[in-house]
Amino acid sequence: MTSFSFSLQKTDGAARRGRVTTAHGTFETPTFMATATAATVKAMTVDQVRGTGAELAICNTYHLMLRPSAERVAALGGLHTFMNWAGPIVTDSGGFQVMSLASLRKLTEDGVTFQSHVDGSKHNLTPERSMEIQTLLDSDITMALDECTPHPATHEVAAESMRRSMRWAQRCREAFQQREGYGLFGIVQGSTYEDLRAESVRALNDIGFDGFGIGGLAVGEGQEAMFRVLDFTMPLVPTDKPRYLMGVGTPSDIVGSVMRGIDMFDCVMPTRAGRTGRGYTHRGTINIKNARHAADPRPLDERCTCPTCQHYSRAYLHHLFRCEEILGPMLLTQHNLHYYQMLMQSIRGAIEQGAMQAFAAAFAADQTLGDVSPLLETKKG
Amino acid sequence: MTSFSFSLQKTDGAARRGRVTTAHGTFETPTFMATATAATVKAMTVDQVRGTGAELAICNTYHLMLRPSAERVAALGGLHTFMNWAGPIVTDSGGFQVMSLASLRKLTEDGVTFQSHVDGSKHNLTPERSMEIQTLLDSDITMALDECTPHPATHEVAAESMRRSMRWAQRCREAFQQREGYGLFGIVQGSTYEDLRAESVRALNDIGFDGFGIGGLAVGEGQEAMFRVLDFTMPLVPTDKPRYLMGVGTPSDIVGSVMRGIDMFDCVMPTRAGRTGRGYTHRGTINIKNARHAADPRPLDERCTCPTCQHYSRAYLHHLFRCEEILGPMLLTQHNLHYYQMLMQSIRGAIEQGAMQAFAAAFAADQTLGDVSPLLETKKG
Repeated sequence: MTSFSFSLQKTDGAARRGRVTTAHGTFETPTFMATATAATVKAMTVDQVRGTGAELAICNTYHLMLRPSAERVAALGGLHTFMNWAGPIVTDSGGFQVMSLASLRKLTEDGVTFQSHVDGSKHNLTPERSMEIQTLLDSDITMALDECTPHPATHEVAAESMRRSMRWAQRCREAFQQREGYGLFGIVQGSTYEDLRAESVRALNDIGFDGFGIGGLAVGEGQEAMFRVLDFTMPLVPTDKPRYLMGVGTPSDIVGSVMRGIDMFDCVMPTRAGRTGRGYTHRGTINIKNARHAADPRPLDERCTCPTCQHYSRAYLHHLFRCEEILGPMLLTQHNLHYYQMLMQSIRGAIEQGAMQAFAAAFAADQTLGDVSPLLETKKG
Repeated sequence: MTSFSFSLQKTDGAARRGRVTTAHGTFETPTFMATATAATVKAMTVDQVRGTGAELAICNTYHLMLRPSAERVAALGGLHTFMNWAGPIVTDSGGFQVMSLASLRKLTEDGVTFQSHVDGSKHNLTPERSMEIQTLLDSDITMALDECTPHPATHEVAAESMRRSMRWAQRCREAFQQREGYGLFGIVQGSTYEDLRAESVRALNDIGFDGFGIGGLAVGEGQEAMFRVLDFTMPLVPTDKPRYLMGVGTPSDIVGSVMRGIDMFDCVMPTRAGRTGRGYTHRGTINIKNARHAADPRPLDERCTCPTCQHYSRAYLHHLFRCEEILGPMLLTQHNLHYYQMLMQSIRGAIEQGAMQAFAAAFAADQTLGDVSPLLETKKG
């Protein structure tokens, strides 16, 4: 049997190059997870997801407890079999989605009761039930149930919220069913307050976890505030465990957060953007639905090696989106996930070479270039 | 350079096993085309389409002349480059779609004027313009512009409509730009009238075409009437050219039509069904959204070798459709196209072995079986 473990290969300033081993294989860090909320990466087959270079998928407790239910997923062999993803899987605890999606939420010390946003059915989510669900789902990395403190929050509200999350973290630790190769992450809260973040890290350390989620960020505070929180929080987090910045973020967020010691990321942006016509390039994002792309024979990003950029023009992608053809979101999502995975690969390479600062500078300079110039019109006559 | 040609390998009764050679490669007949109306097979990548065994794609003049325009496709290198389909492509002439989709249609001896169903813009489609568009699209098999006579039609209306289509066929022949490896098909009309179908075949024969479309069927007349028309029409059609039954059909339609001498088929049914939750099995079709599949660990069709059936349960497909996840239509379309291609492969094998009658009988018997029985509930306790 394989133990759940993290090995730190190399550091470059605060940036870390590592490897996490789980019951369903390893993944290299810094890593960007493939978002598979309802046990599918939207508009992508599993083979296509793997083809982007993704090693780790993240599914959601809230969505799956409602449909098709954790018990059904377990009866069907767990998430890996259900969705045909052989590699490691993280599951979010459901706390964030209950607060953002469900109606008639009631938060007590025990947990949270709510009505499903799908069919109005009533549900109860406690730390113990969240652990049970994530075990039924068979996720390799279980996240503790917490409350994602909204932003902005007063110090008093943030403290109360964080301390309840820490009591829940203790209950999660006790309820978590230890299995070889499976890990449980605690989640650091405390809003933008240095003393509360420090208190949260100490509390989680005292309980003992296999990794640290950094929660309550990317909730409207802005990149500057987020980086400031990481600046005073990350030096307090033990170096021998993986650190996961939940729900982050833009390519720029990721580069900056890696330089502050983050190992793991997840975000719906590349998949959501792929469905709405926004494509990532090394020069920033473009909207493929814009008329300037209608006759452009060039690929989305001339530097990109993904199947979309190898085989299709901007004009074709534009055509697919104009005609609302499903292949548009499919090809653009594939490109966007490939872009994110190439970014992570470049970051890992830069850390290995001790060149993270230079990489970050070049990355930032490229992002300000703006899109390539339109081609001249075809010569008349 | 490759000549456009048809070689007849084997016959079994009226059923024919053949091969068509085009500028972009060969395809084996009887064949079922992948429907790529707007230069994409809906919800499928080109690799996935090829993976089903499809050798031939069909695109649509009407849709592409409106978006992105034939001139733009030509500027981007033609359809093969535009949509990344290296194999042979058929284009429909646009006549059928003008009459079924466009508004303010006006049909004259010259052609048809209409307003786009997309943006209301005014367009004109004549035999000459249809040939020009299909040349710009670079389709390997160009279809003559005709009027698909609605059903039912009086003998007088059907005769008038068919004779205009024959005059248009003559204009198409004259306007068609001959290129090595490219072919032009005339289309037999005449509704359900034996004398008119015979007159139409003679007219097309006199003009001279590389293949014969059989048009004006699968428009509401029913399978029995369609087979009756094929019974008296196909013996009149020359045996040295491929015969294409346009817009047909169900698996049962295809088996019966092959036995009446048809070589080529196209139909939106497997792709459309794939997007709406209907799956083809050797025991008939099932609706994957039905609650009976919600916990079923079995594949859609236990005989099927497609990636969907190899890797996913009915329960997972049901979950995807219930959650309106794009992967549902993707996986089910893949399965349905694979089902159709496996059917065509079996048909070709049966003809080669002189066993088409036995195959058709076994096929029909299987189709009446109905879906597999539900599994018993999991034992309690």
